[in-house]
Formats: sequence, C-alpha cells, structure tokens
Amino acid sequence: MPPSAPSRIEIVGLSGIPEVAAGANLARLVLDALAASGDALEDGDVLVVTQKIVSKAEGRVVTADAFEPSALARETAKTWHKDPRAVEAALAEARRVVKMDRGVLITETRHGFVCANSGVDASNLAAEDALALLPLDPDASATRLRAELERATGRRLAVLISDTFGRPWREGVVNVAVGVAGMVPLVDYRGERDSQGRSLSTTQVAAADEIAAAAELVMGKLDRVPVAVVRGAAYTPAEGSVKPLLRAAGQDLFR
Amino acid sequence: MPPSAPSRIEIVGLSGIPEVAAGANLARLVLDALAASGDALEDGDVLVVTQKIVSKAEGRVVTADAFEPSALARETAKTWHKDPRAVEAALAEARRVVKMDRGVLITETRHGFVCANSGVDASNLAAEDALALLPLDPDASATRLRAELERATGRRLAVLISDTFGRPWREGVVNVAVGVAGMVPLVDYRGERDSQGRSLSTTQVAAADEIAAAAELVMGKLDRVPVAVVRGAAYTPAEGSVKPLLRAAGQDLFR
Repeated sequence: MPPSAPSRIEIVGLSGIPEVAAGANLARLVLDALAASGDALEDGDVLVVTQKIVSKAEGRVVTADAFEPSALARETAKTWHKDPRAVEAALAEARRVVKMDRGVLITETRHGFVCANSGVDASNLAAEDALALLPLDPDASATRLRAELERATGRRLAVLISDTFGRPWREGVVNVAVGVAGMVPLVDYRGERDSQGRSLSTTQVAAADEIAAAAELVMGKLDRVPVAVVRGAAYTPAEGSVKPLLRAAGQDLFR
Repeated sequence: MPPSAPSRIEIVGLSGIPEVAAGANLARLVLDALAASGDALEDGDVLVVTQKIVSKAEGRVVTADAFEPSALARETAKTWHKDPRAVEAALAEARRVVKMDRGVLITETRHGFVCANSGVDASNLAAEDALALLPLDPDASATRLRAELERATGRRLAVLISDTFGRPWREGVVNVAVGVAGMVPLVDYRGERDSQGRSLSTTQVAAADEIAAAAELVMGKLDRVPVAVVRGAAYTPAEGSVKPLLRAAGQDLFR
C-alpha cells in the first residue's frame, strides 16, 4: 500500500560545502555544513546529492586527454563544434547510442540511464580540460553515504544521487535520481482504488524522481548548493536502488 | 539572468476541497480551503492545481457514451481489454498518434502534449462511465484562476495546472505542468558561466515541471489533495504559458 501523502514538505538547500576533492568524505562535508547552518538531520529526511560532487569525491573527474578520439568522435566533434575528447568520453561511457543527430548524442550508459553525452559534463570543475563522468555505481555511492550519515546521526535516512536529464517532447532538463538508497523509488498504486472504488489508471509514480526534481529548486546551476534535505516526504523505507526506475528494454516503446 | 536559488522551499497540500462540480468557482474553493486550514497566500506562492478538478469545473467530464467507437477504437479495445469508448475519446482528443503498441496509446494532444491516451482518464470521477478530458486551454484556465486569486488576495501569484505523464526510458509517471500562468516556465542559463567561468552544458531547466513534480509529493493519488501551495520557489514573473515547455516538432529527435 502506498504511503499517505504528507500535508507539508520542506526542502532546504545546503550551502557551505567546499570544493570537493578526490577522496573527500562526503558524509563529513554534509554534516559539517549542516552543523554550520544550525540544522540537523531528522528521521525520514531524504538527502539529495548532485552527481557532480559524488563523482569528484570518487575520482571520476578525469583529464580530457585520457580519451583518444576515434574517427567517429573526431568527425562528430568537427561537424558539431565539440571537443573530440568529450565526444570520445561519452561514447566510452555508453553501452548503446540511442540517437546521434544535429549535434545531440543520446546514449544508454553502462548503468542503463538514457541521457545526453552519457552524463559526461565539463561544467563546474576546478581543473582545466577536465571531464566529470557519472559514478561507477551510483546506488553503491548512495548506500555508502546513507550508512555513514545514519551511523553518525542515529537517524533513519534516504539518499538520492541526482543529475539533470533532458527528455523527449519537452524542453528543459529536470533533475532525476541516478542512485537510490533507503527508499522504494516507485510508489505503486496497482490494486488500489480511487475515491469511487474504481481502479486507478496511473499505477506507479516515480517518487524518487519527483523528490530529485523538488530538490533542484533549491540547488540551481550557478549557486554552490550540491546537497538538499527534503523533509517530510512520505516513502516506504527499503534498501533501495535506481533500477526499478529504469524501464526494461523489452517494455519500452521508444527503444 | 536566472533567479538565485532560494535556501528553503515549503510545499503545503490543501485538503478540504469538496467534490468539484461543473461550473464551480475554483478560486473560491481554494480560498475557502486555505481559510479553513488557517493559511493564507503569500507573494510569490505558486499554486499547483491538478488537471482533474479544472476539467471538472470546466465541464470537461463527459459520459463515455458521447464517443462512438470507430473500427480502430473497437479493434484496439478488444485486443487490449479496454473500453472502446475511452479509446475513441483518446483518439478524438489527439492530433497525432505517436505510438500504439502493446495496449499503450501515446498521442500528441491538440495542445501539443505527448502523453498516454491524450490525457483522458476515468479515475476519481463521481459519475459512472464518465471520462475526464484535459481542459481545452490549460494556459487560459491557469490565467483565469491566477487573476481571480490575485484579485481576491492582493498577492502576486503563479498558477500551474498539472497532470501526471509517463516518459520513455524510465518507469513511473511524474507530475508536469500542462498550464502555466504568472511565471517563466523554463529557467534559461544560456550565456551564464559556471563557478570556473566556463559555459554551462545545461542551458535550460524546466522549473515549472520541477515545481509540479514537487507538488505531487503532497498530492498523492488516493488522498483528496488536488491543490498544493509551493512557497519560496524562485521564478521570473511573467504572463506565462506552457508552450515554451513543448519542444517544437522540428527540434525533437524523437518524433
């Protein structure tokens, strides 16, 4: 049974997190920033953490020169005025090219995410010529961070690693979950009845994606707010994983 | 220039809205429910209102018998165990069929939304055999509601009409904006620089969709919470429209 919707949710952006270096202890940085802001975690809080600082902490920011452009990457980069090393990085991180047209490279990453450039991104990085790759296993990143934060605070928490993805048909990116720990990511209404006793046509709501989207509202792209606390959201506690959010290839009309 | 991200956002679900009849004054119902809950609107509040109660108020809930199934609708319904009248309604509300496979009918509605069944939905309706169609002009619905609420309260507001849409590649529906008034729906970062002075790879964030997603967290599907107030979100005031969120056909790799 899905959890009842709460009447009030609060979303707090956590500023004061310094530039994250490879090997940094994210849990410690989050707790220090919380303490500095006079806040503390509460049972049920969902921490939403941008992929970028997780990748930085995990050493997934690499120099662009690590990628030797293939003929395909060189040709694509030339046509569309891109850095051939960045194109090569996107191809290297992909297990399938979904669309490659008009300078847009949409791939399925090794994790199964369908997004632009395999999530490879050059913005908000300290080093020149650097590329941030998605974490190798964002669920594991979320699980580790959750365990450390729960141990340090004694609170029951959930952690989402987020990234902004584009989507077909609609303009603009939205923040989605790429790693999930501590919650069931899909709220399942199958078998539930509406107020009139009829079956619901909507069967599953992507709650983790909606929480990630909500968190983006306090993160922005220019402000240094890589972590948000979402307080009061209803969810079903669980070990958690992003996998239920990824549609199986055989079920997807758009593959 | 995009507005700075706020440090704190609050989302309040508005219960206590009665069953909405055709011709109902939604502004009055919202204000009464707010007063009963001891809350009042503040400058900058974004009201997110589910499409369903807007359609009810605007008489867009119709009897299924109003739709005479075509041969196509009858065949589709038979194969996939659906109501042929509901299939006919979805086809009648469409200007294009995007995909029709495995019992899933994805269309482009007359407004330009790409969604399942043209947004036609039978759940949470009082009458037997009724179908809710999307509002004829959700931007106009949002604009009217905003004007009435601003006049009654003297506050500067934004209003989003929302519906839950599925998406390719990821499971679960998410709430998105189908009508917008009072805000620029896309936050534009084009020309902005990151913390290191580099161009951002993400150029536009679908803020209205993220606000709609955030609101869904207090709405749920079973609870009677058709309105949420999102307080503290940063946005650029404007007349507003959902149209900037709809990708032009020529720009969309997935048409």
